[in-house]
Amino acid sequence: MKIRLICLNKTAKEYENLVAEYSKRIARYTKFDMVILPAVKGINASEEQQKKEAEKILAKIQSTSYVILLNETKPINSIGGKEYTSKQFANLLQQKMNASISELVFVIGGAYGFYQSVYDIAKEQVSLSKLTLPHQLVRLVFLEQLYRGFTILRGEKYHH
Amino acid sequence: MKIRLICLNKTAKEYENLVAEYSKRIARYTKFDMVILPAVKGINASEEQQKKEAEKILAKIQSTSYVILLNETKPINSIGGKEYTSKQFANLLQQKMNASISELVFVIGGAYGFYQSVYDIAKEQVSLSKLTLPHQLVRLVFLEQLYRGFTILRGEKYHH
Repeated sequence: MKIRLICLNKTAKEYENLVAEYSKRIARYTKFDMVILPAVKGINASEEQQKKEAEKILAKIQSTSYVILLNETKPINSIGGKEYTSKQFANLLQQKMNASISELVFVIGGAYGFYQSVYDIAKEQVSLSKLTLPHQLVRLVFLEQLYRGFTILRGEKYHH
Repeated sequence: MKIRLICLNKTAKEYENLVAEYSKRIARYTKFDMVILPAVKGINASEEQQKKEAEKILAKIQSTSYVILLNETKPINSIGGKEYTSKQFANLLQQKMNASISELVFVIGGAYGFYQSVYDIAKEQVSLSKLTLPHQLVRLVFLEQLYRGFTILRGEKYHH
C-alpha cells in the first residue's frame, strides 16, 4: 500500500530536519510521498480561492485512493475527526492494507479547514488531538504517528 | 503567576530552535522556566532508580506550587490525563491565575510514567492527545499550547 500525505505550504525551516527524518523512517515500511501545495492566504480566503485550492488537492488524488482528512475534533462546519490511540491508528493502517487499498491519502487542510469538494471524496476524518495545533506541528505529529504505527504493527521496539 | 515546566532528558538537537522560540514567546506573557533533569534509562528502570528520579523532580517543586502532570489519556496504572481543547486549556490557565496561584508547575514524565510520590503531589493530569507521543514532541506541543493559551486569553490573532 502506498501512502501519500497532501499538505499546504512548504515545511517551515525549523521543522525540515524532523519531517525529513520521519519521512525517511516511514519509507522503510511503505512507499511514501508528501505532496506540498501552495495555500491560499488566511482564514478569510474567498470562496473562489478555497475552491481553487481544493481543485489542486483533488488533482493529486486518484479516484481509486482511500482518502482520510486530518481534521480538528470539532470544527465549526463538519462532524470533525475521530481521535485514535496510537495502537488504534496502527490498526487503521492494517485494516486498509488488508482491504487491498492501493493508495491511502491523508490530507492536512488549510487555515479555514476543507472545502466541500474535499469533504465529498473523504472516507474518514482523523483528529490528532482535541487541541488546535499549527499545521506544521500537525504534519510532524502525523508523520511520527505513521512511523510509530508501522513499528507497532511490526512489534518493533520504538513503541511502548 | 510563574509557570515552570519540568522534563527529563535534554531537548534533542532538532527540537532546540522550536523549543527556544516558543519559550521566548511564552516569556512575553509570564515568568516561565524549564527545568531539565537527567532521566533514568529505559522503561525497565528499577524501583530505586525511579524513586531517585522522582526525588529530583520533587526537589524542583515548592510546596505552594500547583502541580499538573502531562500524562497519557489512559496509562496502565493511573486514571490518566484529561483532554482539553485549546480554549479549555487557556481557561485552565486563567482559573489558576484567578485563584492567585503563585506558581504553576507542569511535569512531563519519563518512559515508564510517573513514580507514585509525583502522583501524590499532583492536583491534575492533562493529556495532550490520545496518541502516544515521544517526550520531545510532548514538550513541543505543550509549549505551543501554553503560548497559544496566552494568545487566546489576550484575544490575539495567533489563535483561530
